[in-house]
Amino acid sequence: MTTGLARFSINQMTVKQLSLPELVDACGQLGVSQAGLWREPVQEYGLEAAAKLVRDAGLTVTTLCRGGFFTAIDPEERAAALADNRRAVDEAATLGTDTLVLVSGGLPPGSKDLRAARERIADALAELAPYAEAHGVRLAIEPLHPMYASDRCVVSTLAQALDLAERFPARQVGVTVDTYHIWWDDQAPAQIARAGAAGRIHAFQLADWTTPLPEGVLNGRAQIGDGAIDMREWRSHVEAAGYTGPIEVELFNEGLWARDGREVLAETADRFHRAFQ
Amino acid sequence: MTTGLARFSINQMTVKQLSLPELVDACGQLGVSQAGLWREPVQEYGLEAAAKLVRDAGLTVTTLCRGGFFTAIDPEERAAALADNRRAVDEAATLGTDTLVLVSGGLPPGSKDLRAARERIADALAELAPYAEAHGVRLAIEPLHPMYASDRCVVSTLAQALDLAERFPARQVGVTVDTYHIWWDDQAPAQIARAGAAGRIHAFQLADWTTPLPEGVLNGRAQIGDGAIDMREWRSHVEAAGYTGPIEVELFNEGLWARDGREVLAETADRFHRAFQ
Repeated sequence: MTTGLARFSINQMTVKQLSLPELVDACGQLGVSQAGLWREPVQEYGLEAAAKLVRDAGLTVTTLCRGGFFTAIDPEERAAALADNRRAVDEAATLGTDTLVLVSGGLPPGSKDLRAARERIADALAELAPYAEAHGVRLAIEPLHPMYASDRCVVSTLAQALDLAERFPARQVGVTVDTYHIWWDDQAPAQIARAGAAGRIHAFQLADWTTPLPEGVLNGRAQIGDGAIDMREWRSHVEAAGYTGPIEVELFNEGLWARDGREVLAETADRFHRAFQ
Repeated sequence: MTTGLARFSINQMTVKQLSLPELVDACGQLGVSQAGLWREPVQEYGLEAAAKLVRDAGLTVTTLCRGGFFTAIDPEERAAALADNRRAVDEAATLGTDTLVLVSGGLPPGSKDLRAARERIADALAELAPYAEAHGVRLAIEPLHPMYASDRCVVSTLAQALDLAERFPARQVGVTVDTYHIWWDDQAPAQIARAGAAGRIHAFQLADWTTPLPEGVLNGRAQIGDGAIDMREWRSHVEAAGYTGPIEVELFNEGLWARDGREVLAETADRFHRAFQ
């Protein structure tokens, strides 16, 4: 396990109060050389301009967040989702990242059929994965915590994510390991080993777990070290599985967003450093 | 699958705005013959008086909720928890129910070690289970949704609950299957079969899943039929596993608690009936 910031990547959402140029500048000042970006702020700034900005600054884009939302039943909605995901692949390629993170989508209105929704994800991947490979982009299915199963992501465990990913070559489809979503799962270490053995750990993200959860449970992802998750243990599992890539810190947290973004970025880098000393 | 109310049991928490005599009376008027009770309102009414009230009314007590909270590290806290659980067993026996539901407890302050916390539950069960058997009471470990793993219950899946229960005879320790906590888990049907084959399904409870979850995520358990859970499917799994016991509806819901309790009880019985027609 190396310490310091060599492996650290700041996910843009953690400091979404910073504009893209502010983020790039703050990274340069702090010696942060990697960032995970989100589609919406990139589109807002302009895709080509954003690509030039990070390239000129020497900032490596570790992931683009996010594609997915594949669970619609309606054919038109499904076609629109696929078209949007092809654009996400194009954007990832333009930004120079090889990894598009996928959040699969929840149950369609009125449906109670998780199994069928998961199968529709596989159908969508069969169309999207070859397109992504042709553009040099790997898809990284992210299992989300089971509390999101109905409305955001019917893929709730690494085992489920791998069951989907393994229908495709590892160079096309792998998984995102995010501590916030899997920390409770005693099966996750074995699934990390399964993913690593097949070269399917395409992204590794950190956030800490604190309670009480806020209404809607979206923006309670806590700063590293503030919560219940043993970050060293999870990093050890991922590295024992052969992962040597970037480690993104991705926090959704109203408290952090209300503060000065540069200060939050510096704190996050410091917490990362201290978590692995 | 039988319809009607023969299998229906109303968990007291669903209509906690009713006093115990009001609950017993409302059950009599609606033809509801079974109820799951909670320790606090029973103690408030008086244990012996409560036992007489339900006995005289011919109301069967299906479970007592709840024992548990076994994860403390401090020896004095552990001794106090065990003593309180022995009292819970005594109360269950006095009320005439054979089932004490256990919520295992969360991580102690400052701890990040889920595995050790789960092991301390096993240690506590080793002391409590023989005591319970001697009083004619079975312990029913309830896995709670993973969103409660840090602060209420480190047992998050049926598989984990059965790993603990199987260290003891089935007549001493089994599990509570609650749709709200397991509905997202594609491994749960196989674990229900595992539990049923060993005679370890000691309680079966229903609540539906809706979003957005409220702050603190405690009181969002929705009325049957309002959410994402396929109640018929889960009942089928449980009955295929050999379970023929009561089916409790246990809702924690601020909206339901704000309404007239008798009306909520009637609605709940009606929803139960319609879910399985």
